[in-house]
Amino acid sequence: MRIHVINGPSLDRLGKREPEIYGRESLEDIRQWLERQCAGDELSFFQSALEGQLIEALFRAEDEGADGVILNPASYSHTSLALADALSALHLPVVEVHLSNIHGREEIRRRTLTGACCKGVISGLGKFGYLAAIEYLRRAG
Amino acid sequence: MRIHVINGPSLDRLGKREPEIYGRESLEDIRQWLERQCAGDELSFFQSALEGQLIEALFRAEDEGADGVILNPASYSHTSLALADALSALHLPVVEVHLSNIHGREEIRRRTLTGACCKGVISGLGKFGYLAAIEYLRRAG
Amino acid sequence: MRIHVINGPSLDRLGKREPEIYGRESLEDIRQWLERQCAGDELSFFQSALEGQLIEALFRAEDEGADGVILNPASYSHTSLALADALSALHLPVVEVHLSNIHGREEIRRRTLTGACCKGVISGLGKFGYLAAIEYLRRAG
Amino acid sequence: MRIHVINGPSLDRLGKREPEIYGRESLEDIRQWLERQCAGDELSFFQSALEGQLIEALFRAEDEGADGVILNPASYSHTSLALADALSALHLPVVEVHLSNIHGREEIRRRTLTGACCKGVISGLGKFGYLAAIEYLRRAG
Amino acid sequence: MRIHVINGPSLDRLGKREPEIYGRESLEDIRQWLERQCAGDELSFFQSALEGQLIEALFRAEDEGADGVILNPASYSHTSLALADALSALHLPVVEVHLSNIHGREEIRRRTLTGACCKGVISGLGKFGYLAAIEYLRRAG
Amino acid sequence: MRIHVINGPSLDRLGKREPEIYGRESLEDIRQWLERQCAGDELSFFQSALEGQLIEALFRAEDEGADGVILNPASYSHTSLALADALSALHLPVVEVHLSNIHGREEIRRRTLTGACCKGVISGLGKFGYLAAIEYLRRAG
Amino acid sequence: MRIHVINGPSLDRLGKREPEIYGRESLEDIRQWLERQCAGDELSFFQSALEGQLIEALFRAEDEGADGVILNPASYSHTSLALADALSALHLPVVEVHLSNIHGREEIRRRTLTGACCKGVISGLGKFGYLAAIEYLRRAG
Amino acid sequence: MRIHVINGPSLDRLGKREPEIYGRESLEDIRQWLERQCAGDELSFFQSALEGQLIEALFRAEDEGADGVILNPASYSHTSLALADALSALHLPVVEVHLSNIHGREEIRRRTLTGACCKGVISGLGKFGYLAAIEYLRRAG
Amino acid sequence: MRIHVINGPSLDRLGKREPEIYGRESLEDIRQWLERQCAGDELSFFQSALEGQLIEALFRAEDEGADGVILNPASYSHTSLALADALSALHLPVVEVHLSNIHGREEIRRRTLTGACCKGVISGLGKFGYLAAIEYLRRAG
Amino acid sequence: MRIHVINGPSLDRLGKREPEIYGRESLEDIRQWLERQCAGDELSFFQSALEGQLIEALFRAEDEGADGVILNPASYSHTSLALADALSALHLPVVEVHLSNIHGREEIRRRTLTGACCKGVISGLGKFGYLAAIEYLRRAG
Amino acid sequence: MRIHVINGPSLDRLGKREPEIYGRESLEDIRQWLERQCAGDELSFFQSALEGQLIEALFRAEDEGADGVILNPASYSHTSLALADALSALHLPVVEVHLSNIHGREEIRRRTLTGACCKGVISGLGKFGYLAAIEYLRRAG
Amino acid sequence: MRIHVINGPSLDRLGKREPEIYGRESLEDIRQWLERQCAGDELSFFQSALEGQLIEALFRAEDEGADGVILNPASYSHTSLALADALSALHLPVVEVHLSNIHGREEIRRRTLTGACCKGVISGLGKFGYLAAIEYLRRAG
Repeated sequence: MRIHVINGPSLDRLGKREPEIYGRESLEDIRQWLERQCAGDELSFFQSALEGQLIEALFRAEDEGADGVILNPASYSHTSLALADALSALHLPVVEVHLSNIHGREEIRRRTLTGACCKGVISGLGKFGYLAAIEYLRRAG
Repeated sequence: MRIHVINGPSLDRLGKREPEIYGRESLEDIRQWLERQCAGDELSFFQSALEGQLIEALFRAEDEGADGVILNPASYSHTSLALADALSALHLPVVEVHLSNIHGREEIRRRTLTGACCKGVISGLGKFGYLAAIEYLRRAG
Repeated sequence: MRIHVINGPSLDRLGKREPEIYGRESLEDIRQWLERQCAGDELSFFQSALEGQLIEALFRAEDEGADGVILNPASYSHTSLALADALSALHLPVVEVHLSNIHGREEIRRRTLTGACCKGVISGLGKFGYLAAIEYLRRAG
Repeated sequence: MRIHVINGPSLDRLGKREPEIYGRESLEDIRQWLERQCAGDELSFFQSALEGQLIEALFRAEDEGADGVILNPASYSHTSLALADALSALHLPVVEVHLSNIHGREEIRRRTLTGACCKGVISGLGKFGYLAAIEYLRRAG
Repeated sequence: MRIHVINGPSLDRLGKREPEIYGRESLEDIRQWLERQCAGDELSFFQSALEGQLIEALFRAEDEGADGVILNPASYSHTSLALADALSALHLPVVEVHLSNIHGREEIRRRTLTGACCKGVISGLGKFGYLAAIEYLRRAG
Repeated sequence: MRIHVINGPSLDRLGKREPEIYGRESLEDIRQWLERQCAGDELSFFQSALEGQLIEALFRAEDEGADGVILNPASYSHTSLALADALSALHLPVVEVHLSNIHGREEIRRRTLTGACCKGVISGLGKFGYLAAIEYLRRAG
Repeated sequence: MRIHVINGPSLDRLGKREPEIYGRESLEDIRQWLERQCAGDELSFFQSALEGQLIEALFRAEDEGADGVILNPASYSHTSLALADALSALHLPVVEVHLSNIHGREEIRRRTLTGACCKGVISGLGKFGYLAAIEYLRRAG
Repeated sequence: MRIHVINGPSLDRLGKREPEIYGRESLEDIRQWLERQCAGDELSFFQSALEGQLIEALFRAEDEGADGVILNPASYSHTSLALADALSALHLPVVEVHLSNIHGREEIRRRTLTGACCKGVISGLGKFGYLAAIEYLRRAG
Repeated sequence: MRIHVINGPSLDRLGKREPEIYGRESLEDIRQWLERQCAGDELSFFQSALEGQLIEALFRAEDEGADGVILNPASYSHTSLALADALSALHLPVVEVHLSNIHGREEIRRRTLTGACCKGVISGLGKFGYLAAIEYLRRAG
Repeated sequence: MRIHVINGPSLDRLGKREPEIYGRESLEDIRQWLERQCAGDELSFFQSALEGQLIEALFRAEDEGADGVILNPASYSHTSLALADALSALHLPVVEVHLSNIHGREEIRRRTLTGACCKGVISGLGKFGYLAAIEYLRRAG
Repeated sequence: MRIHVINGPSLDRLGKREPEIYGRESLEDIRQWLERQCAGDELSFFQSALEGQLIEALFRAEDEGADGVILNPASYSHTSLALADALSALHLPVVEVHLSNIHGREEIRRRTLTGACCKGVISGLGKFGYLAAIEYLRRAG
Repeated sequence: MRIHVINGPSLDRLGKREPEIYGRESLEDIRQWLERQCAGDELSFFQSALEGQLIEALFRAEDEGADGVILNPASYSHTSLALADALSALHLPVVEVHLSNIHGREEIRRRTLTGACCKGVISGLGKFGYLAAIEYLRRAG
């Protein structure tokens, strides 16, 4: 399967930023671990802090014939109607993933505008959330 | 691993209730499918419409030495402070699972009080959500 | 016709509780009066203070082939998403009845979550509300 | 008995307006059906789209010695403090009737300011709502 | 001075409506009492339950060369943007008067949209409120 | 084309009311200017401060076979559920027009209940808004 | 009559503070003007910026046998539950007076907690508000 | 005196659950301590996680002739209208007790719906709260 | 023990103010009754209507070596962040006491800002609340 | 005239995205149709998903001497204070255009922050909205 | 320059109160440090826990010819309309200073009513905030 | 010291945009004035309208070994959770600066999400705000 994994703002600081909370693995470490777990799949990674570039990445996934998308929009998840609109315009199955459990955080982070436009949302399972999303896309997406 | 799977109100109507939305599989079908997927694990299923019995089931899991719990509280998820309190008092890893995507439903269903007291929440992936939760408990729980 | 009349918490105190407001008739008095009014119909009464037992009573009505249900959920009407879900899963016509006029009470009691999932709601007509609901089920339900 | 039946805005379009929802009967059809059902009663019908004329009709009912009033305020029900004040100033029993179930509609239509000043409210039972209201006034009003 | 006194819905029931609260004087009684108090002034009274007729009465006061207006909009005070707009378009000094003290009533009646577009507001002083308003217009209007 | 142009409260004061804001043209001036611009069309103008008469004017447009309606409900736009209901019951294309830009005004004026039931809304373009609405009805209505 | 006139914070700056809005008269000027208008009455003036001293002044009025109180609480009107409680505990008629029209000011100033515990409220009539309050106490208080 | 002490969900976990917060004493320890303190009184203990069983226990207290009730509804305190209704229907003095200080916890726990229907509420005094409540019932209940 | 009992605004009117609600005992009567009940303790009473003086009294208790404080802030309880700050800065155990049940009063009085910074809150038990608070300080404070 | 037409996120998917709602015409089709309608004008088109690039495009229009701007901010309309600020800093007339009727959509899309800083807003008229905006700029801008 | 530095409730506890948060310096220490930093200026310090005394101090600054004021209203900042009114009536430049960062505290402390009536607000810079405010007054005030 | 000064959207229009409010100095003028004031420091300026580029600039400051950051996020301050997250992930002291006083503007601009993640916030002091921030970083940062 061909799956695009799109990551939002500050995820490039993973591993350096508050490691006691987010762990010591960088996004690159997670990418390599995922590729080992999913040897038969073709994974394509993208990260950006710009809302518009994430929208472009979503449409590029469709244009390049991906089978599904995994989106970790980080904090844009709670505020971006533009990302939500783009997700509604997409013809691909998308699963939203959050490393930490958004339901246990401040009020404003408990609601996900973008998740409302995805197949489903996984939050709080750390890097295993990405793996579960791939597994879902492979079997039911 | 020994995992308790606890299900809340109306889930015993699965398969009969609005099958065009929830699919034609009953909770028993899902149980059997899960056991085939996780042959090496010991799964224990429970379902009840009574809030108090779900609380008792959580504490029983701890008393009986389970390694983890999967909880689908259905609509109690949004209103039950009592369940949330019980989860906070528990010493087991718990993953909350919802068959449908709660983030795409009415306002009052987008927030999960109980999920805030779990390790993480999976919503919208249908029966695969249970499987992903077991996988997580097995590898990182 | 076979009609199940399901009553929620505290209705078993009727007649003893604040008689200057709710009148001196007990739920049993109302049942007997209703049976005299509807001699040709088969009425089945149930009362419970437990949310889960009311849900079970709704599904039992369907399983036992009732023609319709009259539901007085008392205060669960304003807080129980679980009852509302059960009503949505039911294939029987249901009319919600309240003895007092909920629209003239405190803010929190003016909205009925369960009534939103019924055919209609009658409130404030005392025991005549039950009679009007039966009449409706008989002629148009 | 002498009963005034007062109807608010757009009810004169009944039968023509979205018949798949409101049915094919006009207000005149309902009036004739009601008169056949209540041969011994004297019914007086009134309809207007003007808030002030509905208030005048309420006071006229009292001045002309009616025994009770049935009021279908349509959408004024949710916004008119002026109608609510007039109802409070009236010395007649009033039952509010809505053809559709207001509790199952958008938020703003679930609350009835005018219903709070009536004996009771019947909603969702179609034309049978008028009949149930007359029956109530005849026996308990 | 020439002063128009404009009264809103239900004020024609004064004296008959809840006399233990509003007193036993009718609007006509108040009119005669006011004329005795203000022998040198020319008072013009108007009452209507129709929002549009109150707007027309405001503009008529201007067209007929009145020196000021006293407005008792009753419950329209809290909901009518149309009356408020008309007041903003008027070139006459207007004082709003309420017989009862709106600040001591339910939340929704504590705010006056129309009063915000007047010179001032007098509430709770009964018929003396009209007199104080005339006195103000005579000396400072 | 036959188009009804329906105008709400206070628009008959146009030109006299705050001319530095709304300009020096009266509604009659706008009507004549519009008729010069749209020589081939048959325009029918109506204005009233009464909510009920505006509802009647909407239905009359349908009964008299108009091709479309332009509605400037003025402040009723923000509060009148009754007008909104009438618009939903109508089978004609309607465009709502506001002379000033409602989005730049106080909070309560930024939302249009009636506009939600129209084809579209034009606000802030002055008399050109009427012209644009006619053009739209002529080419796409 | 013996009337205590109690004034709250900043009123001692009257005349110096924004004279284009509040006029050029000081509180002392108003006091002298009032005494000329009410030659037969015994007026007692008090001003303080301290919430507690205003409460003490209210109780002192009662202890010293005053016939009534005029209270201008200035901005404490909108926030002081303590003043409101003291007014409820008082056995004297009190009229609240505001120089400017609080209904035309920002949201937070439109509601008067203290006014809810008085006989009535006069706002926007400038110094005539004090006079109207005295007149009311003399004739109807 | 005969006093029923009714305890809600999770209180059976006392002593085991977060002992650094709630102390190491179980509900049974508290019961025995209370009985030693109140040797002359007859105390009857009940605990349940089911809302409906707590309601039944309240009515049973009345039926069995108790002199008063102490109720610790735990988290039902904040959400249960059904319990609040039952309390209003009861003819016994009830004092609500909370071990921890609900006023210092999250917003949703600061309000007690059930406490509003009791004589009074004691919160934050640990097991001494039960003792103070008994003392109150003995001397003033 | 040495305990400071600090009382807020209007409590000096106790006994005179609405005796049918608050009873006929003055604050002085309560003080004498308390001293008889607690012969071995040293009680120090203070009352003021001034927010700042109450803050000073709290700090004075600490400076003079009191063992604990009982605070009845009356209505400052609901509005005074300054008192709440002072309580947080204090190193003494404080119990807040209200004579009436604040949970059964209007919305704005159900929340206590100051109580959130105390050990606990007792409300609705009348003068016994002071006694229970002293008892608590003596045994567990 | 020289007019810049600036379009926000996802508008480049027009024609491919939900054609049953938005029609089968792409943004390029609309551009060509507009140029045929406005042969004498010089239109300059821009589209971007990046908030900052839209801001830059607004300032570029001013720097390049455009006579006016048409802005379709898509979903940024509801969330972008930055775009609203840029509009306030601009010295050009701007008309906001939405293809669909934002007033008939979900609550969060009914308010336009950016539209509040434009001359006016046109919504729901499809591609004719662009044409009407150009017409307005040509004759009255 | 002559600058008045006015400090609100609890600031006299600085150094003693939670030193791990607020540091070990008292208000007197800060005063001496400021005077060393600003040898050429004439600083006048004032502190009080009484709202009314702070208002008097503001007016005294003006009466005594100060060139500017630095105000640290502590928690009155969030609740005192009376202080805000006094600031609006003042003809001196005022800068508000908070030792801690109010924007990072609870919701109710993030808004400053008084700061809205000052030149500017500095928060979170500790004692340097006073220095920056003096610097600003000296160069630009 | 090495300090990065990062500026958000529209600040490049300074001097041209509403000079009567924001003054006639451009951002470049302010930069030169600051460099003259802080001759010994190394200042690095950056401006962008793109949210993502501001996030990148924050991380670049850390990567390039800056001693501190001054951030003027303009309107992103009120809406950008992404900027707030980036600030939380940064290991440098940051001071937020606003040229105008945000506390005196519309409701939505009074709250700063980003300021909550900084050391402190300075608003309303114009270009002196930048200078005060540098001074703070130099002495206490």
